[in-house]
Amino acid sequence: MTAGRHFLQIPGPSNVPDRILRAMDYPTMDHRGPAFADVGRKALEGMKSIFKTESRVVIYPSSGTGAWEAALVNTLSPGDTVLMYETGHFATLWKSLAQKLDLNPVFIESDWRAGADPAAIEERLRADKGHEIKAVCVVHNETSTGSVTPVADVRRAMDAAGHPALLMADTISSLASVEFKHDDWGVDVTVSGSQKGLMLPPGLSFNAISDKAMKVSEAAGLKRAYWSWADMAGPNDTGYFPYTPATNLLYGLNEAIDMLHEEGLDNVFARHQRHAAATRAAVKAWGLEVLCQVPEHRSPVLTAVMVPEGHSADNFRAVTLRNYDMSLGNGLSKVADRVFRIGHLGDFNDLMLCGTLSGVEMGLRDAGIPYRAGGVQAALEVLGQKFDAARAAA
Amino acid sequence: MTAGRHFLQIPGPSNVPDRILRAMDYPTMDHRGPAFADVGRKALEGMKSIFKTESRVVIYPSSGTGAWEAALVNTLSPGDTVLMYETGHFATLWKSLAQKLDLNPVFIESDWRAGADPAAIEERLRADKGHEIKAVCVVHNETSTGSVTPVADVRRAMDAAGHPALLMADTISSLASVEFKHDDWGVDVTVSGSQKGLMLPPGLSFNAISDKAMKVSEAAGLKRAYWSWADMAGPNDTGYFPYTPATNLLYGLNEAIDMLHEEGLDNVFARHQRHAAATRAAVKAWGLEVLCQVPEHRSPVLTAVMVPEGHSADNFRAVTLRNYDMSLGNGLSKVADRVFRIGHLGDFNDLMLCGTLSGVEMGLRDAGIPYRAGGVQAALEVLGQKFDAARAAA
Amino acid sequence: MTAGRHFLQIPGPSNVPDRILRAMDYPTMDHRGPAFADVGRKALEGMKSIFKTESRVVIYPSSGTGAWEAALVNTLSPGDTVLMYETGHFATLWKSLAQKLDLNPVFIESDWRAGADPAAIEERLRADKGHEIKAVCVVHNETSTGSVTPVADVRRAMDAAGHPALLMADTISSLASVEFKHDDWGVDVTVSGSQKGLMLPPGLSFNAISDKAMKVSEAAGLKRAYWSWADMAGPNDTGYFPYTPATNLLYGLNEAIDMLHEEGLDNVFARHQRHAAATRAAVKAWGLEVLCQVPEHRSPVLTAVMVPEGHSADNFRAVTLRNYDMSLGNGLSKVADRVFRIGHLGDFNDLMLCGTLSGVEMGLRDAGIPYRAGGVQAALEVLGQKFDAARAAA
Amino acid sequence: MTAGRHFLQIPGPSNVPDRILRAMDYPTMDHRGPAFADVGRKALEGMKSIFKTESRVVIYPSSGTGAWEAALVNTLSPGDTVLMYETGHFATLWKSLAQKLDLNPVFIESDWRAGADPAAIEERLRADKGHEIKAVCVVHNETSTGSVTPVADVRRAMDAAGHPALLMADTISSLASVEFKHDDWGVDVTVSGSQKGLMLPPGLSFNAISDKAMKVSEAAGLKRAYWSWADMAGPNDTGYFPYTPATNLLYGLNEAIDMLHEEGLDNVFARHQRHAAATRAAVKAWGLEVLCQVPEHRSPVLTAVMVPEGHSADNFRAVTLRNYDMSLGNGLSKVADRVFRIGHLGDFNDLMLCGTLSGVEMGLRDAGIPYRAGGVQAALEVLGQKFDAARAAA
Repeated sequence: MTAGRHFLQIPGPSNVPDRILRAMDYPTMDHRGPAFADVGRKALEGMKSIFKTESRVVIYPSSGTGAWEAALVNTLSPGDTVLMYETGHFATLWKSLAQKLDLNPVFIESDWRAGADPAAIEERLRADKGHEIKAVCVVHNETSTGSVTPVADVRRAMDAAGHPALLMADTISSLASVEFKHDDWGVDVTVSGSQKGLMLPPGLSFNAISDKAMKVSEAAGLKRAYWSWADMAGPNDTGYFPYTPATNLLYGLNEAIDMLHEEGLDNVFARHQRHAAATRAAVKAWGLEVLCQVPEHRSPVLTAVMVPEGHSADNFRAVTLRNYDMSLGNGLSKVADRVFRIGHLGDFNDLMLCGTLSGVEMGLRDAGIPYRAGGVQAALEVLGQKFDAARAAA
Repeated sequence: MTAGRHFLQIPGPSNVPDRILRAMDYPTMDHRGPAFADVGRKALEGMKSIFKTESRVVIYPSSGTGAWEAALVNTLSPGDTVLMYETGHFATLWKSLAQKLDLNPVFIESDWRAGADPAAIEERLRADKGHEIKAVCVVHNETSTGSVTPVADVRRAMDAAGHPALLMADTISSLASVEFKHDDWGVDVTVSGSQKGLMLPPGLSFNAISDKAMKVSEAAGLKRAYWSWADMAGPNDTGYFPYTPATNLLYGLNEAIDMLHEEGLDNVFARHQRHAAATRAAVKAWGLEVLCQVPEHRSPVLTAVMVPEGHSADNFRAVTLRNYDMSLGNGLSKVADRVFRIGHLGDFNDLMLCGTLSGVEMGLRDAGIPYRAGGVQAALEVLGQKFDAARAAA
Repeated sequence: MTAGRHFLQIPGPSNVPDRILRAMDYPTMDHRGPAFADVGRKALEGMKSIFKTESRVVIYPSSGTGAWEAALVNTLSPGDTVLMYETGHFATLWKSLAQKLDLNPVFIESDWRAGADPAAIEERLRADKGHEIKAVCVVHNETSTGSVTPVADVRRAMDAAGHPALLMADTISSLASVEFKHDDWGVDVTVSGSQKGLMLPPGLSFNAISDKAMKVSEAAGLKRAYWSWADMAGPNDTGYFPYTPATNLLYGLNEAIDMLHEEGLDNVFARHQRHAAATRAAVKAWGLEVLCQVPEHRSPVLTAVMVPEGHSADNFRAVTLRNYDMSLGNGLSKVADRVFRIGHLGDFNDLMLCGTLSGVEMGLRDAGIPYRAGGVQAALEVLGQKFDAARAAA
Repeated sequence: MTAGRHFLQIPGPSNVPDRILRAMDYPTMDHRGPAFADVGRKALEGMKSIFKTESRVVIYPSSGTGAWEAALVNTLSPGDTVLMYETGHFATLWKSLAQKLDLNPVFIESDWRAGADPAAIEERLRADKGHEIKAVCVVHNETSTGSVTPVADVRRAMDAAGHPALLMADTISSLASVEFKHDDWGVDVTVSGSQKGLMLPPGLSFNAISDKAMKVSEAAGLKRAYWSWADMAGPNDTGYFPYTPATNLLYGLNEAIDMLHEEGLDNVFARHQRHAAATRAAVKAWGLEVLCQVPEHRSPVLTAVMVPEGHSADNFRAVTLRNYDMSLGNGLSKVADRVFRIGHLGDFNDLMLCGTLSGVEMGLRDAGIPYRAGGVQAALEVLGQKFDAARAAA
């Protein structure tokens, strides 16, 4: 029995705001009836405004993993080569998924301490004279490491190499938290999920699809039914779905879309940047190291922090959960027990961040991790800069 | 703007009870944290008690259509023959899905006015000397027609034919409303969904898997990732999932499992039988015809009613929705505009049924369908029989 | 353990719609902060539109009984004579309350089978040459009997008698269900509550106050603090309250006000009239008698039904609750065990009414009350008349 | 539009936990039906365990102000003298209320910087040879100042003076947060409300009543109806109420009682003490002064902080609300604009406190209040002491 609110500071699922929970807490409706069309259309059109695309968005009743699968099975044929980039655990999982589906992923390896390097991608594409590579797949925000891949630069690299492969981007943990422009950046398939920047519970996933990808899909040889874009297209055009949609999650999605536009997407992005900066200031003050080594790749939605050699990040997380009722993300695979991850995404504000960082600072002490006090203090200073001008004027 | 509660009397999604909506209306939790294991285990174990199986159940964040796909891709190889039975629209959709996945469905055709005929299945299996048929797939409760297939008899027919095919049953609209026994009836893969007898919103689907099916799965050649039973098995054993589960729907599922056992599954089944009998009495009194012609196949969860030649069932449904705020199911495909379907499943009671039948009776009049008044009256008489003994004793 | 929704067909509290429950299910806010003013103003202004008044409305965190007390203590002095009218149990309770507060109620007795008779009131007032009577108090809709007092006629009677007493009307079970016009009808103090036509849970009560009553209040000698209009007035003028308001009920009230105006008050009143007519048709078909003997006084919000001599209305209600999960209102005091009351108020529609009447008809049989079958059938015919023109045109 | 959760850090209403909001979010039930008795009995019996009394508790649908009035009108007669103690704004309001009800309060004045002094009370009582004083009324936790009156010592003072007056204690902002023992401490009437330690929205209030007070009530001359203990007693004995109770708030109250006992009242009290100590450490580090000057009187539920001369506490609060979406309590009456109040009561935990104090520290800077940085840091150190032993053992 614990009092007060749990601090859910994993890098997703994020804290679901009351407005969204309440929007979902309504009777399920007839998904074939006339009133449903408004719900469906709002969701499908609204998501275009979030992906910043004029082309098609499809919505699946599934986790984000399903949208990874959908992106591949709709566009590729058995044995196709895809270029993937090892930014971390989730990029590796996507690669494994490609292998299970009978694709041939070429994997650019890395040390997990940065986003994907467009130059390395360009080099591989230039070397692929025969255009064996059918798709380049990158993770926009690698949730396991807190590194952001510059997707627009990947597109530029592809164009520079004159390579016709499709560009696919996983924005599961970045969409609606970090700037993303499906159309302007020339992405062909964007993959996303509901439970991070969209502030929903898990259970919905998305593909945003360029016209080129839609066209490619017609001849793609991998078999598909549940994930078929073609089957979605007809019913979606009038606001319906080919099979029963996750109606109550769509109620929540429509509320989320409203909330994001009420705040303004640019304000949402700036809010996340500011919280990430304050978090990194705290980490620096504690004398700890951020996993991502490339400053401009550091994620606005989560910060992975390395614990000193000889100390256990998982023990620290367990102590913090027990003593302060806060969940933090664990290190996965290559960095298991070496890092912990602070989620600062979704429906989040300054004082929730201060509570979060206070929990980390107290947890470090309780778990016997060597650190310097003062991280929260450093964060307060960064957060306060927003109001410097107002103070000066007063 | 309409006052009062909408009557959602399509044959699913069914009316979600407040207890379940409220159970879902809680903050999403860390699906990797220690507290989640209790949620996951309760859902996975609880669903075994609903399927009446001792073997494995998997839960997908998806619609029921996903669980159809999962049943096939985990057990079959490209080009495999499967025996399917045209009980109605959904059986036909499952067949189409099998075709899309590169399987070879043999389809026993029918007039949609009964459940599957075990004798016809036995005949086909006996003819399949080479055991080309790898699976027999039937729909337990065909939602488009209101016909129930006697699944235990199908198993007996398979055994009589000495055929080794797997038996797969779709219980999407029957589970937790109509008696079903995965183990006792020798079913290998049972497919189900959340939004009917389980009283949840759509968004979860299920496979119950016999040990034989699990074994067969190891060598099955269709490619799979999201739907992979093997990937589920490990994490499921400790209450976790290989990818992010639909956490809030799981909260609701656990509440549903509790509610079903509080009422008692046998009482739930009897309740549905009684409501179906009262509904059929009303249909008879109106002088209309039930689509399903085989009395013992008539569904406890929905009743499809034929409208007289020259009249439009869809116009009747539109009038009933507009005048009485009640959604009824439409006729699909072969019976489009020829039937309407009354759902009487899920969280439902006598007075909700009386309201439903009243809406049908008034809608028949308003839509100009020839009918005799007195259907509701007839239903009241059937419902009251439950209390005859108590009355006699008083 | 019962399945489906409980039918709460007492004459209030009425069924609270989901929109209102969800509106209340939000975090309590600072009732002294700047954001609260919008909530308070909307509630206070919105209630004027429901009472149809331009003068002041006050809102108490209390049951309706509190608003009865408030009406008296703000306007009267110890020993004052008030003219009250015995329309039923609640009129009698209000009289008792007046006695407890040291007032001197003169009570016009009646047989509980009609609303108040304006002529009888006029006669008493004409006899009161010395204007000892300071207030005339009537119950607009007597919840214990289902009789409506013609309040506008009472005002006309008072004016005809040239009597300066204040006119007070209890609209606890009529407001927002039965037409009421505080200003046009010359009412000085209207008393109401949240849990009937306003569709809220109990916990809020109201006084609408004419300028004359406000003026009279200044010199009124009864002591008051919690109920003081004068203390409310200042804070209310800017949307605040002198003590902590029932914030979450106010959230719900504001939603209720929106819902009532979305449907349109005149449509709401017509809906209740139509349901009452259908209910009375059922009662007549059953061969039972409505308690209220004056046709134009019969209530649009509830119907009190007499059971034949020698039968127990309370046993009937207990049987109906047990067999059909429906709560009906009991007979109170003078008519205890002689009548049952069917509530058809608040957020209610045709099919809910049909379910309700079906429960009554089955309950009559199960409880062994002599009746003729066919009440529900009769109600269906009345309800269908609304669509006669549309049918004829089709 | 603000993101994330509002920090409601006024000293009540406190943050309502999801469990309680959801418990309230259920359909209203028949408060005269058989199922209600369980709800009513649980609430009435449960509140005895919170007040720590074996005698009667009554529950009003009203704000705490109503329970103040109820305590007086049930026990006193017009013109009676009551001894009250000016601990702050709310003690003064109670005194004003007594005056409005025709009582004669003798008011022991104070500078608002401590709880009531039992010695001063004893002195007044000793001087009252004729036992004109009928009741001694103290505020247990003065919400306007953050000072706690030692109620057990007041009882000892009364006994030492051999005075027969009733002892009344207002625990509106202390009950279920600060230790209180109605029976052991010899309190005759304890007044309380729902929206502080009980974690509910406002709308319920309470009197706990000693047998002596109940006896005195029989002859008390003040008029009463809504507040009458005698009218409550009969229906309460079987779990019912004399008029419509605030049903949905009772649902929440029963959940609150469960939550308090799950945590354990002693743990709840210790949690509040610890948070208060951390808050005072922050205030000291900031170089600011706590309003309450008597260390052992300092409140576990709120801390009132003085701003330096020449600075505006209200401007600070407005800046903090605007910049950090946190509501703090204002200075009332004598200390208007001189203090701000930090609420740390109800459903509250360490990280919520850290967020709160961070908001204060940043707000001080933004509002130009002279302060020293480091308050949050000081609080972290105090909070961490709880885990010192565990750390040492590890």
